[in-house]
Amino acid sequence: MPVALDCLPCLLRQAISVVKKITGDSGRQAVLLQSLLQQASSLDLSLPPPEIARQMHQLLQQQTGEADLYREENRRQNAMALALYPEIHRRVQASEDPLELALRLAIAGNVIDCGVSDEISELEVAAALEKALREPIKGDLTAFRQAIHSARQILYLADNAGEIVFDRLLMEQIGFGKITLAVRGREILNDATRTDAEAAGLDQLVTLIDNGSGVPGTLLADCSTGFRERFAAAELIISKGQGNFETLCGSSSKVFFLFKVKCEVIARRAGMP
Amino acid sequence: MPVALDCLPCLLRQAISVVKKITGDSGRQAVLLQSLLQQASSLDLSLPPPEIARQMHQLLQQQTGEADLYREENRRQNAMALALYPEIHRRVQASEDPLELALRLAIAGNVIDCGVSDEISELEVAAALEKALREPIKGDLTAFRQAIHSARQILYLADNAGEIVFDRLLMEQIGFGKITLAVRGREILNDATRTDAEAAGLDQLVTLIDNGSGVPGTLLADCSTGFRERFAAAELIISKGQGNFETLCGSSSKVFFLFKVKCEVIARRAGMP
Repeated sequence: MPVALDCLPCLLRQAISVVKKITGDSGRQAVLLQSLLQQASSLDLSLPPPEIARQMHQLLQQQTGEADLYREENRRQNAMALALYPEIHRRVQASEDPLELALRLAIAGNVIDCGVSDEISELEVAAALEKALREPIKGDLTAFRQAIHSARQILYLADNAGEIVFDRLLMEQIGFGKITLAVRGREILNDATRTDAEAAGLDQLVTLIDNGSGVPGTLLADCSTGFRERFAAAELIISKGQGNFETLCGSSSKVFFLFKVKCEVIARRAGMP
Repeated sequence: MPVALDCLPCLLRQAISVVKKITGDSGRQAVLLQSLLQQASSLDLSLPPPEIARQMHQLLQQQTGEADLYREENRRQNAMALALYPEIHRRVQASEDPLELALRLAIAGNVIDCGVSDEISELEVAAALEKALREPIKGDLTAFRQAIHSARQILYLADNAGEIVFDRLLMEQIGFGKITLAVRGREILNDATRTDAEAAGLDQLVTLIDNGSGVPGTLLADCSTGFRERFAAAELIISKGQGNFETLCGSSSKVFFLFKVKCEVIARRAGMP
């Protein structure tokens, strides 16, 4: 989907939070901001929001020489999720419907998103998990159940660090053996890369690939040929997060999108509050 | 105060809401947005937020030839406030402390601000008025009482249409005869101009002037010489709204600022939640 006008203040806010992460010096912040606005003035409004986010972050990365501004953040979020893991894993095991609970928890894990808020606390994650158990899900759970049951191979598109630990619960219910897990090809925001999949222990359990791209979504045109081939050949795709939705909605009928609605633009698009 | 990094997404959001008001055509919206971003790329970050807002709106006004994009909005907000006026006027008259109640209601009226939200409803205004009766006020009410009592002439800087009707309550308690009411010199957002002061019946009650400027605040360098002389000579100044605070804070010790805190940046600056 092309970027909406209402996405731009949000993308700018996101980039400004990266600027503040880079430097506390107001003069240097101003220089980085001007370069962002300069870039934005020739923005291609047909692009999806995650590609614009990538361009903004690439510019900041070039100017600072720092490839992974969220390394510490990601480490913290993986650790936080891993600390919760044993308990929620037990709850899934003990549940009457482990698949539904794991699905709900995987969606809840999508609350960990530095694109929306930099400062997600353990308390907020815990609250999101509790809420996830009761909230309505838009979509056909029975169709999802049938689709994952009958598919022999499933391509699972990860979203963020931390969140990927919650995805592990769902992958376990689906069956690790069926899963090819795709992470981002380069560091961008707090999106999950190979490092995060390894932190979640998933490299030992599923087939792990990366998509060759540094877009915080799945912009097929920017992905590696290898990934595009996997995508085209996939029997079934599970896509996590808003960024993947923004770049893939309408692309294929074999995708289930699992994410939390985090803004008005996507709420309208998804028909959810 | 110079614009903060965090102000920019908000200023952009504000300008985008004006763009949407101008046209529903997405192609034309994109053209206007590009011109805004082009202008923003050479932004002077030493300017206060209201001056940046003015520059953005001036650009949009130039491109559309429409000087007053908020005419209907202002009319609606004045009418809404005037409909509430008789009842709140009675409540002030019947109050044990009419000055404090009028002061609280004048502050509550500051909730009507198209810079923050375009769609303020009667219900929201009514809720803000009720809340205003109980909320803490930062500042020395006794000092305010004494200052307005001893001042012979008071310069009252209005903020928005609609809100100006609530200001009338406070001006009545102070004594209309003492008041010189200053409105904006040109239409900008839903800021009050002479038209709105007249709609509130204030032209018949106080000395009405305009500041000669189209900034949604009081940027002295942009105001007329006549206004600047009045400002310098004023015994006491009552300044309404965040825009006036952003442009005048620190400018003079004889100013009382009456406004609702509407964002994080101002909350930090004012030391209020």
